[in-house]
Amino acid sequence: MTFNTGEELRLAIRKEIFDKPTSGYASEYVQANLVILPKDWAYDFLLFSQRNKKPCPILEVGEVGDYNTRFIAENADIRTDLSKYRVYENGQLISEPKNLKDLWRDDFVFFLIGCSFSFEQALINAGLELRHQTENVNVPMYNTNIMCNSAGKFKTSPLVVSMRPFNHKNAIKAVEITSDYPDVHGSPVHLGDPKIIGINDINTPDYGDRVNIKDDEIPVFWACGVTPQKAALISKPPIMITHSPGYMFVGDIKNSELKL
Amino acid sequence: MTFNTGEELRLAIRKEIFDKPTSGYASEYVQANLVILPKDWAYDFLLFSQRNKKPCPILEVGEVGDYNTRFIAENADIRTDLSKYRVYENGQLISEPKNLKDLWRDDFVFFLIGCSFSFEQALINAGLELRHQTENVNVPMYNTNIMCNSAGKFKTSPLVVSMRPFNHKNAIKAVEITSDYPDVHGSPVHLGDPKIIGINDINTPDYGDRVNIKDDEIPVFWACGVTPQKAALISKPPIMITHSPGYMFVGDIKNSELKL
Repeated sequence: MTFNTGEELRLAIRKEIFDKPTSGYASEYVQANLVILPKDWAYDFLLFSQRNKKPCPILEVGEVGDYNTRFIAENADIRTDLSKYRVYENGQLISEPKNLKDLWRDDFVFFLIGCSFSFEQALINAGLELRHQTENVNVPMYNTNIMCNSAGKFKTSPLVVSMRPFNHKNAIKAVEITSDYPDVHGSPVHLGDPKIIGINDINTPDYGDRVNIKDDEIPVFWACGVTPQKAALISKPPIMITHSPGYMFVGDIKNSELKL
Repeated sequence: MTFNTGEELRLAIRKEIFDKPTSGYASEYVQANLVILPKDWAYDFLLFSQRNKKPCPILEVGEVGDYNTRFIAENADIRTDLSKYRVYENGQLISEPKNLKDLWRDDFVFFLIGCSFSFEQALINAGLELRHQTENVNVPMYNTNIMCNSAGKFKTSPLVVSMRPFNHKNAIKAVEITSDYPDVHGSPVHLGDPKIIGINDINTPDYGDRVNIKDDEIPVFWACGVTPQKAALISKPPIMITHSPGYMFVGDIKNSELKL
């Protein structure tokens, strides 16, 4: 299946015609991480995002109880327009529903958070190879010893990073290019020796898959959208709903529109 | 009086040794707009800022009831470290106290918002002349027909802009330079014909002072930190406290650190 726009893909998901991971589909259009929290946790989460902009670049926040987007997509319905969700209660994963029609509550607030898919397109356009794409696996992700700033009920929690290997020349290019995308994690947080940020074995990522790093390459690390999920799980809100990894929200704006 | 650091200036203000407008003092250090709101208005204001990043670039938000800064300054006390405040009740200015020692409440939340003083230093360093500085007046500011996005109790309200005239060559330079400072309003929102954004008479600003525009110059307009104050006044929170115009909060970080 191919989709010419984010809206086409979103409508296919809503009708349950399409239920695969969204990576590579409608690839010019912005994809986003989803976090849903009850109102009494929403302020602290928004503040956590303000204090940790690199891992939590907020693209849109709903009004209390509202499941329709206003900014990055028109007429999207947060309850039906992703194909797989994760429901956590007190930090425990309890179900993975296909929609939220029966679960949505009047006190829910949704957050859409920028995703590295947006800057990956810019890296590819500049001629860079993304190893996890070449090897057809998930990008490797790691917990680090870099701690996020706390905010109200959200305790301090480790920054999660994604890693892409490049040779020295392309590592510089990758820094330059992603610097122009602060709304989707921006420039890297680290490059080179993984031990400096608390990663002891680059070959055993905490999330996603291992990729090969060639002799002339160094690992380059970006703040990752898994960070707010990890923070929320440590702080154990009574209920939190997210997208299922890889099953992202797809918007109407193009990745290129996020460039500074 | 001269001050080598933001902290020196702040301590002089705290001791009431210094009580003048802060522009031009400790000029390498970041200065910020202050907004204080009760907790039940804080979420909507934070959301308003997220939806209107250009006029409301948030530099720091306090925890509920906390009057000490953690990020842009160490050991600053929001109650005493500005020399003049404005207290508004239901949208009406009711007093202009020298400190907030008797007014601070356990449910207050402070917001420090980026200020164009930060990018003005970068413009001067690049050799550009700032007309309001040459003429020794306040920068001219205008209400526009560009409407801010609403957020909860914060209704839609007009974007307020500041204006600096440049010749065409320097206007381009000014766009380039300020683009690198998204945390202090970033690139301009408009340049050229003021009527397009609803300004009918460039010679009668709504706030600040008129400046001369030479024959070879065009006006360049930036989103302005007066916008959130205007939004709050339209939406009439029961209480809101701000800095008095020109009497800014001064931090420990340098303007240059806000560059992307």
